[in-house]
Amino acid sequence: MKIIKDSAPSAEGFRMPAEFEPHAGCIMIFPERADSWQYGAYAARKAFGQIAEAIARSEKVTVCASAAQYDNARALLPAHIRVVEMSSNDAWARDYAPTFVKNALGEVRGIDWGFNAWGGLCDGLYFPWDKDDHMARKLCDLLDKDVYDKRDFILEGGSIHVDGEGTCMVTESCLLSKGRNPELSKEEIEDVLKAYLNVAKVLWLPCGIYNDETNEHVDNICAFTAPGEVVLAWTQDQTDVQYAMSRACLDYLEQALDARGRRIRVHKLPLPKPVTVSEEECRGLDACLDRPARTPGERLAASYVNFYIANGSVVMPAFGDPADETAREILQRLFPDREVVQIYSRDILIGGGNIHCITQQIPE
Amino acid sequence: MKIIKDSAPSAEGFRMPAEFEPHAGCIMIFPERADSWQYGAYAARKAFGQIAEAIARSEKVTVCASAAQYDNARALLPAHIRVVEMSSNDAWARDYAPTFVKNALGEVRGIDWGFNAWGGLCDGLYFPWDKDDHMARKLCDLLDKDVYDKRDFILEGGSIHVDGEGTCMVTESCLLSKGRNPELSKEEIEDVLKAYLNVAKVLWLPCGIYNDETNEHVDNICAFTAPGEVVLAWTQDQTDVQYAMSRACLDYLEQALDARGRRIRVHKLPLPKPVTVSEEECRGLDACLDRPARTPGERLAASYVNFYIANGSVVMPAFGDPADETAREILQRLFPDREVVQIYSRDILIGGGNIHCITQQIPE
Repeated sequence: MKIIKDSAPSAEGFRMPAEFEPHAGCIMIFPERADSWQYGAYAARKAFGQIAEAIARSEKVTVCASAAQYDNARALLPAHIRVVEMSSNDAWARDYAPTFVKNALGEVRGIDWGFNAWGGLCDGLYFPWDKDDHMARKLCDLLDKDVYDKRDFILEGGSIHVDGEGTCMVTESCLLSKGRNPELSKEEIEDVLKAYLNVAKVLWLPCGIYNDETNEHVDNICAFTAPGEVVLAWTQDQTDVQYAMSRACLDYLEQALDARGRRIRVHKLPLPKPVTVSEEECRGLDACLDRPARTPGERLAASYVNFYIANGSVVMPAFGDPADETAREILQRLFPDREVVQIYSRDILIGGGNIHCITQQIPE
Repeated sequence: MKIIKDSAPSAEGFRMPAEFEPHAGCIMIFPERADSWQYGAYAARKAFGQIAEAIARSEKVTVCASAAQYDNARALLPAHIRVVEMSSNDAWARDYAPTFVKNALGEVRGIDWGFNAWGGLCDGLYFPWDKDDHMARKLCDLLDKDVYDKRDFILEGGSIHVDGEGTCMVTESCLLSKGRNPELSKEEIEDVLKAYLNVAKVLWLPCGIYNDETNEHVDNICAFTAPGEVVLAWTQDQTDVQYAMSRACLDYLEQALDARGRRIRVHKLPLPKPVTVSEEECRGLDACLDRPARTPGERLAASYVNFYIANGSVVMPAFGDPADETAREILQRLFPDREVVQIYSRDILIGGGNIHCITQQIPE
């Protein structure tokens, strides 16, 4: 694994492929942290396992587990899923695993962004985050990929989406947050994204999903389903706090052009009814930084947009809500060549994210 | 990684290739243990690094490092050597990494033997050994190889050598020791070796190198250099305790036939003058099981036979002894197509082994 410090991917013909382009595999992390995963993480592990199995039907899945949890992971997962020992502070592969870029010859490299637990000492979610921050480089070493060192720029994989044709989509609430790169202007942040993802245009959605503690990652509210097409998390309930947020994103997208000069086609994906955490669930969580990790009644950032596009399937959340089926039908229509698989993911949602947050694709 | 419990390699056409057959790569482990590696393991790490670099000139080297030592390993080793996180109790890759077998189609599988730190609670060298014992399976998972589960049989990779043509060579002192498989007869042990390594003949040397705390592993006294040919560690000093031991091995080999019915050609490889551990070196070691790990003046099991055959080189020990050069010349003559590289390895020897003990080849 060569560490590349003095140049950016775009200068060498590398670009970040869209998630719907072919994958060599997928990276996940086995959940363990007692202030993230209620009641010893047993329910979360079951959901992680179902997701890993669904993805592994069409691409190789590698699950990272700590030394302490390796045997549990190996026992839970079927033989065709690879388990490797790798320590982390939590289980959000999307945000710690490398962002992979690829050139025209098919060579794949990683990008090692700085990671500070979604806001560092400003509004980060836990401390320390050193093991997470090491993962991108360790994964590139494991996979025998060279890696771009961009650790002086704080970015999580869940805060960016690309269409593979020159457009990147982010949220202002996240990328302009005080806890990430406060010394950089919006233009300077755009320049980093352009140089490292090899995109010509950055779409800036104003915000994400209400109470999304990642400062509203884009991957929970809006995702490309094809070049020029997105799904947007949507509620019809104008009295709900999310309405104005989704509306602001829609307004932005309706006036935007992508890198190729196309108007964006927006498919609304319904949100489930507001999901809140129960007293019983809160009792199963350790405290975090001396405060309760969750408080009863707290609203969780549930959204069907938080799906993973595998080679042969789309793996999406279910919440036991009437909208589960509507959302599934919409995605199935948008991905006619893939099987849409729905996994009940409340136990991941309580941890603070969903299926897209716990997966990272490796381009073919 | 499929775990195969109900059949043995020979039944499925798999055999253990000789070390001089082509490799896909080599596995090593980064040294860390304070009762094995004097003065914080710095000198040992330097030697490990030199060995890894020498091997990496002709095959891919993967070095396993604990979470705590990962960064040190990565900083010490050049970029083309892969470092992966994997915990262990010590650094003897030969003895914990899988023994690999291969079939005629080129498919490679691992064997996961039981490991009990060279004798378990009987005369083992440290406690616990659980992380070591897990490595074979974890390495097969990492390398995407299926694995034969033979954990009910205690064996270390350093206690066997094969010629790739049906012959295995072991020592009685080790394989018949009370701390390994005392419930099995010599014939039953032979049957396991035959079934798992796919050999027809087992050569039983009586013993190994004096004071070799592995119960005298074969890989420190005798090694195949080609089918039908071995090097044997030898001293001319008839007053030395080793003389009778090497002599007994020579007598055995001179009357033995290999699996193909050949007489064995024995090349004597001189031993260095007896090497003892110094007071200064002992002061740099933590105690082990409440006893000093080494005592000043203790004789170490130094031997040039403890070399590694890489694709393009033979990496062998040097001790700063006049015999260094003679031994090198003999090996260079026996391996005319490989460069013989000599590495000063006293710092590994103090740990309890040498170059062959800290490496494990993966067949191509």
